[in-house]
Amino acid sequence: MWLFSAPPREEIQAKYGFEITDAWLNHLMKSSVRFNSGGSGSFVSADGLVVTNHHVAADAIQKLSSEEHNYLRDGFLAKTQADELKCVDLELNVLQSIEDVTTRVNAAIPVGATSEAAVAARRKVMAEIEKESLEKTGLRSDVVTLYQGGAYHLYRFKKYTDVRLVFAPELSVAFFGGDPDNFEYPRYNLDVAFLRVYENGQPVKPANYLKWSKVGAQDGELAFVSGHPGTTRRLLTVPELEYIRDNQYPFQLELLKRREVALLAWSGRSSENARRARDELFGIQNTRKARDGALAALQDPEFFEAKVAAEAAFKKQLKDVKDGAEALAAFDRIAEAQKKIAAIVTRHRFLESGLAFNSESFALARELLRAGVERAKPNGERLKEFTDSRRESFEQELFSDKPIYADLEIVLLSDALSYFVEKFGANDPLVKQVLAGKSPRVRAAELINGTQVRDVAFRRKLYEGGASAVTAAKDPMIELARLVDDEARALRKIVEEQDEIKQQAQAVIGKARFAVQGTGTYPDATFTLRLSYGPVKGYEENGVQVPSITQLSGLFERSEKQGNKDPFELPAHWHAKKSAFDLTTPANFVTTCDIIGGNSGSPTVNTAGEFIGIIFDGNIQSLVSDFGYDDKQSRALSVHSAFIIEALRKAYDATPLVNEILNGRR
Amino acid sequence: MWLFSAPPREEIQAKYGFEITDAWLNHLMKSSVRFNSGGSGSFVSADGLVVTNHHVAADAIQKLSSEEHNYLRDGFLAKTQADELKCVDLELNVLQSIEDVTTRVNAAIPVGATSEAAVAARRKVMAEIEKESLEKTGLRSDVVTLYQGGAYHLYRFKKYTDVRLVFAPELSVAFFGGDPDNFEYPRYNLDVAFLRVYENGQPVKPANYLKWSKVGAQDGELAFVSGHPGTTRRLLTVPELEYIRDNQYPFQLELLKRREVALLAWSGRSSENARRARDELFGIQNTRKARDGALAALQDPEFFEAKVAAEAAFKKQLKDVKDGAEALAAFDRIAEAQKKIAAIVTRHRFLESGLAFNSESFALARELLRAGVERAKPNGERLKEFTDSRRESFEQELFSDKPIYADLEIVLLSDALSYFVEKFGANDPLVKQVLAGKSPRVRAAELINGTQVRDVAFRRKLYEGGASAVTAAKDPMIELARLVDDEARALRKIVEEQDEIKQQAQAVIGKARFAVQGTGTYPDATFTLRLSYGPVKGYEENGVQVPSITQLSGLFERSEKQGNKDPFELPAHWHAKKSAFDLTTPANFVTTCDIIGGNSGSPTVNTAGEFIGIIFDGNIQSLVSDFGYDDKQSRALSVHSAFIIEALRKAYDATPLVNEILNGRR
Repeated sequence: MWLFSAPPREEIQAKYGFEITDAWLNHLMKSSVRFNSGGSGSFVSADGLVVTNHHVAADAIQKLSSEEHNYLRDGFLAKTQADELKCVDLELNVLQSIEDVTTRVNAAIPVGATSEAAVAARRKVMAEIEKESLEKTGLRSDVVTLYQGGAYHLYRFKKYTDVRLVFAPELSVAFFGGDPDNFEYPRYNLDVAFLRVYENGQPVKPANYLKWSKVGAQDGELAFVSGHPGTTRRLLTVPELEYIRDNQYPFQLELLKRREVALLAWSGRSSENARRARDELFGIQNTRKARDGALAALQDPEFFEAKVAAEAAFKKQLKDVKDGAEALAAFDRIAEAQKKIAAIVTRHRFLESGLAFNSESFALARELLRAGVERAKPNGERLKEFTDSRRESFEQELFSDKPIYADLEIVLLSDALSYFVEKFGANDPLVKQVLAGKSPRVRAAELINGTQVRDVAFRRKLYEGGASAVTAAKDPMIELARLVDDEARALRKIVEEQDEIKQQAQAVIGKARFAVQGTGTYPDATFTLRLSYGPVKGYEENGVQVPSITQLSGLFERSEKQGNKDPFELPAHWHAKKSAFDLTTPANFVTTCDIIGGNSGSPTVNTAGEFIGIIFDGNIQSLVSDFGYDDKQSRALSVHSAFIIEALRKAYDATPLVNEILNGRR
Repeated sequence: MWLFSAPPREEIQAKYGFEITDAWLNHLMKSSVRFNSGGSGSFVSADGLVVTNHHVAADAIQKLSSEEHNYLRDGFLAKTQADELKCVDLELNVLQSIEDVTTRVNAAIPVGATSEAAVAARRKVMAEIEKESLEKTGLRSDVVTLYQGGAYHLYRFKKYTDVRLVFAPELSVAFFGGDPDNFEYPRYNLDVAFLRVYENGQPVKPANYLKWSKVGAQDGELAFVSGHPGTTRRLLTVPELEYIRDNQYPFQLELLKRREVALLAWSGRSSENARRARDELFGIQNTRKARDGALAALQDPEFFEAKVAAEAAFKKQLKDVKDGAEALAAFDRIAEAQKKIAAIVTRHRFLESGLAFNSESFALARELLRAGVERAKPNGERLKEFTDSRRESFEQELFSDKPIYADLEIVLLSDALSYFVEKFGANDPLVKQVLAGKSPRVRAAELINGTQVRDVAFRRKLYEGGASAVTAAKDPMIELARLVDDEARALRKIVEEQDEIKQQAQAVIGKARFAVQGTGTYPDATFTLRLSYGPVKGYEENGVQVPSITQLSGLFERSEKQGNKDPFELPAHWHAKKSAFDLTTPANFVTTCDIIGGNSGSPTVNTAGEFIGIIFDGNIQSLVSDFGYDDKQSRALSVHSAFIIEALRKAYDATPLVNEILNGRR
């Protein structure tokens, strides 16, 4: 995830004999596109054609869909330019330049400033730089904090807001295999969509766009990924990583699996139940799979020991540098804070994070209770969600009239109360008070049926009436929230204090790290443009060699073997045209490139800078990328460029689009 | 669960004004049938017709099925007596008499005998009594240990081994709603099957059979259940119950839910995966649901406090009786032993119970390793599964060539190793040795792919070659088993010692309890005939009143609402004949009768001793019955007698069978 302003030229030259020139880099940079809705893409024609993932464009496609036209499910192809559909609220950014403004930012911080004053001064100078740049260049200008404050760079972007949908396949082809195949490999997904960027009502003519490779990705060749990784946490200290590995993730997984089973069991009882639980269930399953993958990698001793060794080496370096002792002390403060958090975190999760009372009704009840208390305080002394700056969005959520189903609420709360008893034992005094002499099931039903908080008018009345109205209501759920509030707040205070200590210590370490290592390492991801590299390369899994590239034939085979049933169902016209396809066409492939969420839709290019594929997923072993890069089994998944052409030609008869892609212009 | 030899006559008289006469009792006893495959039933005609549950008869029906005739799925109706199908290995028992032999058994124990000598002497006298009785009466004769040794009764049974299938409905009707509706209410299940008992090639003519009620169960009326509850643990001490509530069940549920998710996720990837995992998944889901229900009830403070109060009252009584101090000391020994078990049980579960290595391959590897060591020892010194008496069944299992799927094994072992790391942390020395520097996934694949234990010939070779052959094989899975064996055996020793202490203490308490309370309470269930009673009565759930009796209309409504899809799919002929049905026919109903596994198929009778329904399930709240009886929400579910007749008439055109049932003879 290297900065475009500091790519690892020597390393790549040494390892692959390839020289990154400024021209090559500049062309790739200006061909790369950021989707501000979260994702990446690239220009692939002189007429403003952009390719990204179907799942990156999905939000925009959904917004263009209606009851008559379900483009998300059924796909879309603009027959002519006039048919291209303007997206409702999509913003694309194209990076134009990077400028180091570290000196100016640091100079603006008064010597000896308190940390609060430093934060304010930094915020002020960054805003000044951004404003100046915007006025001077007309470009969107963001000052980006890198290396946890080790460096500040000014990024200037061209901004596009008129973006139109050109082509999207059916969801069943784009997300073939659905949740079961998510994060898996081998795959056969056509996870692409084409959009066209307009300015002043005309297609934009970008100076830079990627040429489409004639052959596409080849096994063994060096590939590059240019995109916008969202966030990584690779600079966490070893005690923090141990905490995640041995405490946080195991607990999260236990919770997710428990909820998944509860919702699946309830969903099994009726199709209406299934409909009510669907969204939450999908989210749970997706997160569970991601966490499972990340935990498995953290549990890999080789991966973890490399982190331990790197930290030890860095600490050794610190002994010889100015401010090194301060950074070493910061490491100790983090370890100490992490221990203090671990000591109370289970109780914190159940009471302050509310796992013991998991339901929309409890969340609303607590918001009403705390709003009554907090809003009477001066702004600066409130819990952060009740400050004036968040008021509008807080109220919008509090008064939302989204449906809340009492029956689902009872299922969730009853399971949550039971979990609370399990974790702390039925003899725990607070457990006893919470149950009030009833079983978790009976108590949950009594609370959910007894509370009025699901009524928007009731919420509005109590919110406006303040603490006295809240007390007067004697609502059973609010009274439950009150019962646990003292302990919950006390736990929150401890965690927030320790988190603050950790954050300040991390900034100290970040500065020291940049002083020692400079741009010889890359900073954690910041949803700004980064360059990754690595060969197209298979890997070993369960003792079996997984090849780097799959073939189109595999798509039909997998569909047939699963009875062509959802989520392995292909559109009828794919089956009808099967004989027309060249089944040996490469479908998806893997590289060792380093990616993470935000990289979806990134172009994969060869050394000639040509488009050879598009990133759409990582395998399950890549889910550790949050914490570090590893090329043993971790792989980035791309749709092969040849698959896109073959599908557009044979399945969608999109000859004009194919010609534009291959010729680089219409 | 009262003994037929000591029913609570006064209590029933006082509460319901009904007098249990000896004739009434004797008739019900001799009409009741025990299925030795596990379940209950009753005679309902003078021509040997027996009714039981479909799920009790399922094992026998499965054994009669073939590729051409899937009677279990499709049902069966014998058009004539000649068509009745003889079951392969079904044994039915009908209780004829009960005799108290406590004095004779106790007299056979020499004064001052060690507990081992006592066990041997008791076993000897019981065998003598059984043999004498068999020779004298020709009846199957079992001495049953009641009240944990407080009393010994001789039960004599008529034994029948020629049993023929008369009628079974389709599985989809018998088990309507499948797993989602299992343990739930309201229900609409036709969980019945009819069999006929033969002797000497002719239908038996039982002196006693139940008359079929003209109206069947009515809301509010007093009902009795006569059947064979399998086992209960209602006499556990409070510390034991606390352990189950706060440790054992929460842990089991965490494990079950974890495995359920792992198998569901893997099953989702292909229909072949789903097929391979199906059996295990079904078992897991069924147990998970049962445990969830039982735990919820144990977490009910009202239920638990009643147990605490009962124990306190009994301890108070003990202060005034001979040997009371000894029993009180036994309570303390149990509490102490339970604490010692709790201290090491998690480690025991992972190492000795093998959760850390959950796979068929590991189980086989450990058996080979331990067989090599244990078989060289004298019989008396071996771990119990390697003693001579168990040798035959041990070898039969060890050399079974049931399919074991390497891919499923890797999924299970990889999840298990990961769980092991989660529970003890990656820094645990044994965890490190087990992983051998690899991630759980990689290590699991290496072990499963590297071991030869899935090859029957290999197992046979090592088993016959003994310890030296096992060592020489250098099989990686066997070496893993060896690595953990010392600690696993040490943990097992602690648990076994403490379990023995508990068992001896429980016998002391059991005797004292019988001395104090006599037959004023009933003993724990022993799969012998018991009488339960209670009204047909609805209950409140989630603030809603659940009526006691459902109607046939509900069956069709539920099926339609779920799109008539599995497990809510009705056979086509049911839909076709819908207009012929009287949809107001009662379908299922609930009583407060006290039942547990083994009671399935028990007749539900009215005060006239007439058949009004048949037990087939308990609701989710009844799952606590293992630990105690509670009539607040806990309910026994019966198929209504009228539903059986309506279905036989309208859906199956089984007029001769209906006539036999209603007339009590053919």
